Amino acid sequence: MIDTDAVVIGAGPVGLFQVFQLGLLGIKAEIIDVLPEAGGQCMALYPDKPIYDIPGVPVCTGRELTQQLLQQAAPFLLVDTGSSKATPRNLHLGQMVARLAPQATGGFVVETEEGPSFHAKAVFIAAGAGAFVPKTLSIPELQGAANLHYHLPSFDDHAEAAAWAGQHLVVSGGGDEALSAVASIMQAPAAQRPARLTLLHRRAQFQAEAPLAEAVQALIDQGAIELAVGMPTGTRIQNGRIEALSLLNADSATVELPLQHLLIRQGMSPKLGPLTNWGLALERKQLSVQAHSFETSVPGIYAIGDINTYPGKKRLLLCGFHEATLAAHHAAAALHPEAPQHLLYTTTSPLLHKRLGVAP
Amino acid sequence: MIDTDAVVIGAGPVGLFQVFQLGLLGIKAEIIDVLPEAGGQCMALYPDKPIYDIPGVPVCTGRELTQQLLQQAAPFLLVDTGSSKATPRNLHLGQMVARLAPQATGGFVVETEEGPSFHAKAVFIAAGAGAFVPKTLSIPELQGAANLHYHLPSFDDHAEAAAWAGQHLVVSGGGDEALSAVASIMQAPAAQRPARLTLLHRRAQFQAEAPLAEAVQALIDQGAIELAVGMPTGTRIQNGRIEALSLLNADSATVELPLQHLLIRQGMSPKLGPLTNWGLALERKQLSVQAHSFETSVPGIYAIGDINTYPGKKRLLLCGFHEATLAAHHAAAALHPEAPQHLLYTTTSPLLHKRLGVAP
Repeated sequence: MIDTDAVVIGAGPVGLFQVFQLGLLGIKAEIIDVLPEAGGQCMALYPDKPIYDIPGVPVCTGRELTQQLLQQAAPFLLVDTGSSKATPRNLHLGQMVARLAPQATGGFVVETEEGPSFHAKAVFIAAGAGAFVPKTLSIPELQGAANLHYHLPSFDDHAEAAAWAGQHLVVSGGGDEALSAVASIMQAPAAQRPARLTLLHRRAQFQAEAPLAEAVQALIDQGAIELAVGMPTGTRIQNGRIEALSLLNADSATVELPLQHLLIRQGMSPKLGPLTNWGLALERKQLSVQAHSFETSVPGIYAIGDINTYPGKKRLLLCGFHEATLAAHHAAAALHPEAPQHLLYTTTSPLLHKRLGVAP
Repeated sequence: MIDTDAVVIGAGPVGLFQVFQLGLLGIKAEIIDVLPEAGGQCMALYPDKPIYDIPGVPVCTGRELTQQLLQQAAPFLLVDTGSSKATPRNLHLGQMVARLAPQATGGFVVETEEGPSFHAKAVFIAAGAGAFVPKTLSIPELQGAANLHYHLPSFDDHAEAAAWAGQHLVVSGGGDEALSAVASIMQAPAAQRPARLTLLHRRAQFQAEAPLAEAVQALIDQGAIELAVGMPTGTRIQNGRIEALSLLNADSATVELPLQHLLIRQGMSPKLGPLTNWGLALERKQLSVQAHSFETSVPGIYAIGDINTYPGKKRLLLCGFHEATLAAHHAAAALHPEAPQHLLYTTTSPLLHKRLGVAP
């Protein structure tokens, strides 16, 4: 159990700025995100596309904005000395928050599915549209099967062989994510490749960048990989392993596709997930907050950015930055009622300069 | 009378971002500021000092922030072609707004003291701490005297001679602004210099940057200028011209300082001024607004940035940017109730790309 002042759920732009604002106010934060890197939707969906409406930044990409916000929050991200490229030790990536529970003795316990747990005095939910999780097939029986995969292993000569090495792998999807997975797998060292690879898509055309689509089509034309066209409608499972998928084909016939491993690569989608179970007031799947504090229906739990709603709400990054700021000030006043509450400015305050590490 | 969609009062950072957000929503704006350049308090008070809390900008000066915001708003600032350095024709600098009056026929008339008037459908007051006006001496009789000055003329060989050329000029002040004025005047072409220059300050020490204070002290030591130490307590005025100031000196004696021109250079201070007379609800000298729309007590008049107040208000630039954005959306919905109100994103919207001038 990590004991801290604040937990920030979500390391997108708004979550990163929340850590910065909390830091200015002397509040230590731990930050958790389900994605493997910081930046949230900005990095997951449009890392290289231009954004024009960040105030004072005429244009930047999602990646550039993320890098700038990481740099800005750096005084409050705890990087162990001697390892300059390491992930800060208060930034917990690839962790899905599962439970958030107020404690009778005060504060909150925050638990991740497979990682660390936290005790915090305040919680800031900056979860955007929800946790980004892989899209799957709508066949509930598949979930939990031992031979179902969503992620690619790293391919190199020293890596452990992929689970599907030497076996029949079916890759489901027809977009960039599926096709780039197929291309990577076919370029892996021979010992790590499947003996047979079938690309499963609901039609024979792909929705991917032209060069990638052409490269995969060439592999199909050469017979290096197979293409199965059809809509998955069911599965045959034995001993917790998928043995086959049932496909509805273009002739409205159901055929069976036997397989040894299934890799689903159909993109990511945001999932509100566990946070609907935390007892917080919701309105149309958003967390209801007070417009002056961005506090949810539970005192001490704040919601900021795209996850919240209040009268006049616009789902814009610059609004999330404002919300994070007012939430930080509200929490600071609640946590330290004895401290003076007058506003300090980063341009003039020696205390803020010290916290930012820019004092002479 | 200039007819427009919106008037923005104040060309500080928040006013500039207001123009940008209105532009994204297809609303044309005219912008007015009392100062001779854009940037408001940022440029007037800390053009070269660092700001650390603009989201996504780890550090910038007031000048850099202003330049970035001008660049961002550029698609909506109307610069006449052929004169790339000209002030945009919808940016009215050096103009004090005197009157704001709702019209029975709809909309508002906005009048400046000496410049243009406007008819607008909506008004956005981004006046910061108020209009920045020169500080003066607390001798009410001085005001309006023909030989009282606050501004320096431009000195060059082709300029009209300063009013005080060949006469006795008294410069009041002991800070950077007074001393730099003295230094400029003494470097002017001979024909534009006063015959006699007296620096008037309440004590013999100056509050200015060391090199400037030393340069002026050297002029005093050389006898090139005189120093009068004392507190101005009264004046002698004849035919609308100041003939002398009464000074209380260090010996508690009152002495008379005859003069032909008086230049007051004691810095700027913000003045709420006329806007307290526009019938808008005030709370502790701030304009009360709704936290979801930033509309004042008069529908169609918005107040954003440091001039407004609402529960939880923090006087931070990043909050002003959010307020400008929500105010723009609220005004757009009121002005064009028939238009679709779903939010467009600058990253993806072809319409916004067209308005920004970045469409392919």
